[in-house]
Formats: sequence, C-alpha cells, structure tokens
Amino acid sequence: MVIEAVYHRPKLNWSYAYDDKTVHVRIRTKRNNVSKMFVYAGDKYAWERTSSYIEMRILTSDALFDYWEAAIQPPYRRLRYGFKLQSGKETLWLTEQGFHPQEPKTSDGMFEYPFLNPADILKPPSWVKDAVFYQIFPERFANGDPSLDPAEVEAWGGKPTPTNFFGGDLPGVMQHLDHLSELGITAIYFTPVFAATTNHKYDTRDYKLVDPQFGTNETLKELVDACHARGIRVVLDAVFNHCGHSFAPFVDVMEKGADSPYADWFHVKEWPLRIEDGIPTYETFAFEPIMPKLNTENEDVKAYLLDVAEFWVKEIGIDGWRLDVANEVDHRFWRLFHDKVKGINPDAYILGEIWHDSMMWLQGDQFDAVMNYPFTTAVLDFAANGKLDGYGFANAVGSQLASYPQQANEAAFNLLGSHDTPRLLTQCGEDKRRMKLATLLQFTFPGTPCIYYGDEIGLSGGGDPDCRRCMEWDASLQDRDLFAFYRGLIALRQGSKALRTGALRFLHAKPGDARLVLERVHEDGEHLLIFVNASRRSAQLSVKGLGERRWRDALGGDAAPEASGGHLRLRLPAYGYAVLRAE
Amino acid sequence: MVIEAVYHRPKLNWSYAYDDKTVHVRIRTKRNNVSKMFVYAGDKYAWERTSSYIEMRILTSDALFDYWEAAIQPPYRRLRYGFKLQSGKETLWLTEQGFHPQEPKTSDGMFEYPFLNPADILKPPSWVKDAVFYQIFPERFANGDPSLDPAEVEAWGGKPTPTNFFGGDLPGVMQHLDHLSELGITAIYFTPVFAATTNHKYDTRDYKLVDPQFGTNETLKELVDACHARGIRVVLDAVFNHCGHSFAPFVDVMEKGADSPYADWFHVKEWPLRIEDGIPTYETFAFEPIMPKLNTENEDVKAYLLDVAEFWVKEIGIDGWRLDVANEVDHRFWRLFHDKVKGINPDAYILGEIWHDSMMWLQGDQFDAVMNYPFTTAVLDFAANGKLDGYGFANAVGSQLASYPQQANEAAFNLLGSHDTPRLLTQCGEDKRRMKLATLLQFTFPGTPCIYYGDEIGLSGGGDPDCRRCMEWDASLQDRDLFAFYRGLIALRQGSKALRTGALRFLHAKPGDARLVLERVHEDGEHLLIFVNASRRSAQLSVKGLGERRWRDALGGDAAPEASGGHLRLRLPAYGYAVLRAE
Repeated sequence: MVIEAVYHRPKLNWSYAYDDKTVHVRIRTKRNNVSKMFVYAGDKYAWERTSSYIEMRILTSDALFDYWEAAIQPPYRRLRYGFKLQSGKETLWLTEQGFHPQEPKTSDGMFEYPFLNPADILKPPSWVKDAVFYQIFPERFANGDPSLDPAEVEAWGGKPTPTNFFGGDLPGVMQHLDHLSELGITAIYFTPVFAATTNHKYDTRDYKLVDPQFGTNETLKELVDACHARGIRVVLDAVFNHCGHSFAPFVDVMEKGADSPYADWFHVKEWPLRIEDGIPTYETFAFEPIMPKLNTENEDVKAYLLDVAEFWVKEIGIDGWRLDVANEVDHRFWRLFHDKVKGINPDAYILGEIWHDSMMWLQGDQFDAVMNYPFTTAVLDFAANGKLDGYGFANAVGSQLASYPQQANEAAFNLLGSHDTPRLLTQCGEDKRRMKLATLLQFTFPGTPCIYYGDEIGLSGGGDPDCRRCMEWDASLQDRDLFAFYRGLIALRQGSKALRTGALRFLHAKPGDARLVLERVHEDGEHLLIFVNASRRSAQLSVKGLGERRWRDALGGDAAPEASGGHLRLRLPAYGYAVLRAE
Repeated sequence: MVIEAVYHRPKLNWSYAYDDKTVHVRIRTKRNNVSKMFVYAGDKYAWERTSSYIEMRILTSDALFDYWEAAIQPPYRRLRYGFKLQSGKETLWLTEQGFHPQEPKTSDGMFEYPFLNPADILKPPSWVKDAVFYQIFPERFANGDPSLDPAEVEAWGGKPTPTNFFGGDLPGVMQHLDHLSELGITAIYFTPVFAATTNHKYDTRDYKLVDPQFGTNETLKELVDACHARGIRVVLDAVFNHCGHSFAPFVDVMEKGADSPYADWFHVKEWPLRIEDGIPTYETFAFEPIMPKLNTENEDVKAYLLDVAEFWVKEIGIDGWRLDVANEVDHRFWRLFHDKVKGINPDAYILGEIWHDSMMWLQGDQFDAVMNYPFTTAVLDFAANGKLDGYGFANAVGSQLASYPQQANEAAFNLLGSHDTPRLLTQCGEDKRRMKLATLLQFTFPGTPCIYYGDEIGLSGGGDPDCRRCMEWDASLQDRDLFAFYRGLIALRQGSKALRTGALRFLHAKPGDARLVLERVHEDGEHLLIFVNASRRSAQLSVKGLGERRWRDALGGDAAPEASGGHLRLRLPAYGYAVLRAE
C-alpha cells in the first residue's frame, strides 16, 4: 500500500455530523491502491461492548485518490475510531498514532470525534437543496418604471459598457414574475439593490436604502411579498467587505482625515487618504479607490453591518444573503453575522462568494454554502470547451464533492455563469447543444442550480460588461426551445429526490472519452441514469450490472435503450443526452 | 516524486497568520523525496508586480514525511500562492488545481490565504511561552489549616484511595509559596477548587464557591494576590462539560423530573432519571452517574457558565482557565467563553484538556493551547521506558510540531505527568537518571513546561489514586539533588530565548540509537545544543558542520566537548546529558 497517500484528520470534511445522530467518516487512499476499507469504531468509555468494523464505500475518486465514506450513529454520541485497510494480502490499521501491522490492542491512540453536539452541525435550510435559483442583475432585467431612470439612461438593448445605464428596476422584476413562475423558479438571487453610484451597485452608498433607480424600500417589500405569494424566495447581495466612496462614513473620513469619528471604520495605511502610483493609501477591494475596505473588526462597524443584516431579514422579509468577497472578511465577523441572521430566521440561506476551497467557512458557524465555481469550471471544461474528457470531469467533481460535508454539497450554489463571467452560451461557442449538456449536468447534480437571467432564452455575452446585456422580452427574439428545455429540466429536478439528494456515481467516465454516464440513486429506491455524449460524433453508450429493470425516458423524450441482462445500450447523436428512470 | 504524499490545504497549520504581518505556509512531502521546495506567492490583484519564489526549509520530519515551511509578509495582506517542487531533474508545480509540469500561466487556480485579518489570528498571551507552571492538586499539597479538614480526614502521608481525604487546602499553598519561588515557578495550575463532594472536586456542587475544605473565596483571593506579588500567575480548572450530582439545578431535576425549570440544563435521554444496566438515562462524563453532562446549548446554562468564567477572572483576578474534557463541549460554547474571558483579560490563558489532535480548537477563536499529552507520550517512550529510539522520538515530536501553528507550539502545555497519569519517576521505573533526561527534554522544548507537584522532590506514584499522594515537606525526606536539578533547568530556560522560542532541529536522531542531539537557535544569535544519551552505556556523540565556535556547558557543569573544524565530540555516561551554549 502507498501509505503516504492516505489522509484522514478528524472534523471538517473527514469526520463530521451530518445530522443530530449521524457522523460521516471519510478517508482518502491512492486511487485503486486499497481494495477494502473498514472503519473500526465505538464509544471510548465502552469500547469492548460498542466497537465494530463498518465497511466503507468509495464516495468519489479523482485522478490521484479514492475517497471512502461510512455513516455511523454512535450510541452515546461519542465516537472513537481507527481504520482497517486491505490491499490484496496486505492488511494495515491506521490510528492517530500511525499505521500498525496488527489490530491495536487498545483504543487509546485512535482518532476521535469527541461528542456529537448539535450546535456545531452545519445545517443549511432544508429548502435550499430543493430550490431552483434565478440570478437577476437588476439594472438589466426589465425597466418597469421609466420615471426611475437615471438622466443618462440608454435605450433598452444597447451595448453594455462599464458605466452605462438602461433603466432596469424592481417594478420591472415585479412585472415579469410570471416568466419565472412559468419556468419553475423558486428563488431569486439579486445582485446589489442598495443605493450606489455604479450600474452594478457594488459600491454601496446607503445600506438601508433601495437604490432610487430601482425603486424604494416599499417597492422591494412589495416584490418580496409577491415572490413569497408565488413560492419564490429572495436572496440579496451583502457587500460587507467594502463600501462605496459615497458611503457617508467614508465621505466623512475623506473630509476630516484622522479626526473623523469614522477614521477606524476603514483600514488606513497612511494619512491623508490618497492614491500613490495607482495604490490607495487605504485598503480597498483589489486596488479600487471607490471601494474602501470596511474594518469589520471595529465594534461600530460590526454593530452597523449586523443591524443592516437584521433590517432586511426582519423588516423586508428576505430569505437569505449572498456575501460578496466573503473570504476577505474575518471569520469572527461572519460568525456574528451567522448568529444574527439565523437568530431572526433560522431558515435564511447564507451563501458566500468564494471561488476557492471553502471548507473553513462551512463548519456550521459561518455559511450554509458557497458559490460553486469549481463545479462551474468542471462543467464548462467538459461540456462547453472540451478541455476535459469524461474522466477529467468525474475527477474534478469527485475531488470537489469529497472536499465538503454532504449537506454543504446539497446546498451548494451551482452556477454556470454570472455577472462576473462570460455567459454560458458564449462559453459554449454559441453552440446550443453544448449549452444543453452543461445545463443538464447542472440540474442533475447535488447542489441548488442557479440560472443567470437570460440564459434560458438564449442570451449571449462575453466577459464583464458584455455578460450584463439587457434581458430580451420580445418573445419572437427569445429562444423558446431553450426555454422549454430549461423548464423541462426544472420540472425533472423538482420531481426527483434522487437528483436533489441521492447518491452520485459515475458509471462511465474514461480517459480520452467525451461520453459520460452518471447515476443518481435515492434511498427510497428512485434511480436515474444521465447519459451525455459531449462529442461531435454520434456515439453508443453502454452500462453493465444494472440488474433486470425497465428504463424509460425521464425528460419526456423517446430515448429508448436496448437492455438485456442488466446490460443497457443507448445510441446518442453528437452532443446528445438522455435521462432514464428505472420503473 | 510521490505526488500522492503531498498535502497542503489553506488555513489551520498549513497556512496561518503568525502575527499581524506574517503568514506561515507549510506543505508536506514524502520523506527524502523532494530536494528543494519553493512557495510561489504574490498579491492576486498585482501578481506580476508582487509574485516571487521563496525557498522553503524543512521545519520537521517524521517517519513518512518532510514538513516544509516559509514565512511570508504579503504587502497588501492578501496572499495567493502555489508551490514548486524539485526532486533531482524533475520539477513540478502544485496549485489548488493539482500538479502541473510547467509554471502555471495565470495565478487564478492557485491557493489563497485571502486576507490577513488580525481578528482571526491565534494569539496566546505572550507570558505563557516564558512561564514555568506547577500543577497543584489542592487536597494533597499542604494542610495549612486543620480547622478546615473534613471529619474523616486521615493522617498526612497516608495511602491515597479514590475517596479518602488528607486535609490539603489553600492556606497550605499560601504557606509554601517560598518553595515555588525558590524553584523558579511563575504560574500555578490548580485542579478544581470549587465546592464538590469528592477529593478531586471534579463533581462541582457550586461553581461560585471555593470548597470549604480548601478555604473561602477570600482565601483564594488572598492567595492569588500573594502569587501575583511574587510574579506567579494562577490558572484554575473549569469543569464545564459536566457538573456534580449535588449541583442545585441537577438536584432539582432529580426531584422534579421533567417539570423542573432546569430540565433542559442536562441531556436527558429518558425520564425519570435512573441508571439502567450501569448506563444513566442522562448523558454524563463517561458513564459516571455523579457527573451529569451540562447542556451547553441551553441559553441559561451558557449564561450561567459564562458568568462563572467572568466572576473568577474579574473578581478574584485569576490568570486563566484550564478546561476539563474540553473536546466534548460544543465549539460554539467555547467561542463565547473565549470572547467573554478575553474581553475581561486579554492576557488570560485558555488551556484545553484534549489528549488528541487539537487543531480545531487552536484557530484563534477558542483555546490558546492544549495539554500536550502527545509530547508527554513521546518523551516518556524515549527517555522513561525506551520504547522509542532517538529517531522515533524525533519523528513523534516532529509530526506534533508540524500539526499546529508555531504560536500554539510555543504556548503548548508540556507536562510529563498529572493527576490523571502515573508519576514521572514511577514511569521511569524509579530511575532518577531517566527522569532527568525526560525533564531536560521538557525544559529545552518549545511549549510551557509544567511540573506536577512533588515530582521536583522525588515523589513516586502509580496511576490514579496513587499519583495523588501527599506532598513531602520534610526536607530530609525530599530529594534535594532533584530539586537542584529542576531549579537549574528552570533558570536555564528562563535565561534563554532560544529554548523558549528558537527554531528546533535534530542534529542526531537515528534508528536503533538512543542518543539524541537537539539544536535550539534564536534569531538574535543564541545557539544551544542539547545532548542526551538515553542508553545504559556511556556513549560518544558527535556533530558536524557547526562552524568555528566555542561551546561551554550551559547547566553550570563541566561538559567540555572536543571541537575542531565545526566537528564536535562529547562523551556522556549512561543516561548522561549536557547542554552547550555557543559563546
């Protein structure tokens, strides 16, 4: 065995409570190096009576490793454990003390999950894993009230620049809720709606005021109520890492310098505030002078931002917060934020914008989930641009799934594009077939899918600002076939527990092969197969060992596999796909 | 290269802020598999201008791995980084995306330490790393006021049983502070002093009252003041995982059952409270009926315990808390505890009793340090019972040091025995020579050493209750040679920054060899060598490559090495030792 490849360390994604009774234990080994794995577990104070070997299953794999998992319900909430690894005739035991050729004589040196305390469990709101999100960039979704337009407004549908305005607003959203309901959307994520100077509103001027270009606080309240009446939840964007240069405390500091009572609200490196060689003498988002970084260690800043967090949840009734540049703010602040928001509404969704490994924020004390950009990248590289073969895709998402607790994966925010990236269709080289494959994977994966406004009717667009084009409302210019496709996928997902919370396994994922078969199985017996052919040639896909079952097309199409003796064959056209359900 | 052996994941001990400006980055590789390692680091928003390669050094090694470290001061507090690994002619780059044969073209997929926020830094009080602790089990240290004795008191010096009493008390401690001062002690850790029924007082009856057998709250206040006047800090034992069966809220629940207003203060699995087949129907410490586990998720319990924590720090002026069974209490409670205690006294020491890997409690939000039992085991296995050779010892402590941030190691509570283990001398088979080697290692290691009362004068004792014998105050029966040895070691450590915070390196640690040479070097130039011969034969030790320096005995002895051309030779008797200082 390659023992140097083995990794386990208690807590995080390696041993964690999935619910009030269950601990998931995981361990990694070199891929294909260990044939059987057991966790040897019991209560530390009653080891003889309670300990047993539990066989682990391979949860996922990546290019280098297999990740094993077992679920355990410790009778007294304490868990002490070791591992037994088998490879051919070689057997080893692993404890906190290292590897042993024999079964350890005592449990003293084993690993510990010391006590299952419910307060420490990551518990994303249960609605999240069942939701389908829709992201709205308000300035570009719909202009519902021209009286709110800024003076320099341009004609709807014009070319976006970093600074121009088209008059999108909240009344516009209100007027188009039918569009979302028809699609099957159950939650909206709005990029910032608070008063600011830019079209994207990431430079907040007033955290307690809806931007007058978008409407009033009352408009937002009405919109939230209208959404709720339709079963649509609303998540707003909390830009707490930095404010805008027009934010009153920063204006005061600009004026009064170190004498301002707000001087410590910011991270001033050198007075007076100025820009030297393009670098502000105060901390900012990136090196952007109009976005001064807030000092979230200052007591007044903390109180102010927590009050803001409370206000919109309590007074306006929003259902969650998406946290901008979340990983640059201190953990301590996010813990306060978590407790404040969950204290008002335990069902509020706290979603961090983190593009990297986010385990340190997903331990139950900070966020429910993060924007799953690693998933985005894997899907695009497989379905949109072909950088990854099926094997590479399975490895990328396998690694990703193994790196978080199951409940974090179930609540992950799976997006394929946003206001910060080129649009999905454009990433796919404007090839709608590829776009459909990417979207199919998005909707058949663990994690809540999010559609970036307009993707569902075929909007194109390159990187910012081109990805922020005006929504197309002329039905004759919308891609209604694409809309129907999205609608079908949403219905499929909403009707399938397996897709939302079932176990995931790759049945076909090979090097140099753009075909993929994915299985989702729910413990209640629901069983789906997802077939993807990401190549420009038609291809046959075959899967063995499925037992004697009948399979039917689950997307309302006519994909009909040849099946016999648990061996299933299906021919797909170039960039074709199918979803089958066991009868 | 064995790439499966490589491990890095941002935060915890792998990338952490050591102070407000410095991030330590670490990575592990298979031992002796990588010859050179670099961290490639810069600011994500100014990568071209700020990025550079920084060579890493091997921090420590163990049987399987080398652990590399570099310190970086990111100019804008943001750090993006990858690694460059060299092994012979093979070079690889590692990023969050995996291994690459060429230097990555962009920094996008690299690891991130997103922002250095001081609020998140683990900052143990600076006094801890300079302290020498003394652990007192009050019932057995000294009987200073017989009027406090329980009725069933036995004659001082009798045989300890699980339940008997000898009348030790706080006035007894007060009368013997000279003993501690003479030794050089700068901090006391008391096992519990609050009202309880047992001799060990781990079954708290009243958290706000000093046990009447020990004195009054005023006695404790006077003792703390007297200690402070001598430069001795005082740490008490917080038994917050569970209370005693005589604790008023539990008594109420025993009486009134589910109707008690305190019913939710405990974890009741089944009413009425009872013992079934030896298992209480309520959660306890282990399965001990007299120690009901407190429900630290209950708001009233939290408020009560936080008030207790505050009371002794604020009113009595204690300098810290040792937390009993710390890992079975929820993290959420410890975060509140941390903020409460540090809010009153930022210099208070929060020390967790955890026998296992404790990284999850050492992130700046919970504990300053833990009782370093893995260190205990390694020292005993090397010096006391010979289970480990020098190589095994170096590996055990190497693994241990690599698993925590440097500041956690510097503040680690390094004990060689306690009220929960056999006494050091007994662990050493009553061989004082071995005991001295163990203690020498304790005092020349990073981490604050703690002497268990009586070890310094030669007290013996097996496991609990034998390790809780009465202190010997008859000087003619004390081992004064041992006392002088401890005194000398304390003075050595107190006079040496290198021993407290210098870098540590093993210069000699080989398989099958009981000899050890350890180096401690401080950045100000102080340079010490520790020689240990843990074998029953005299032995020669030699070290090369030290340059042209003169070395003298640092323990006031006459160890005089032969030295020439940076090659140093020293002969040691059986179980001999020496500490040399570069002039």
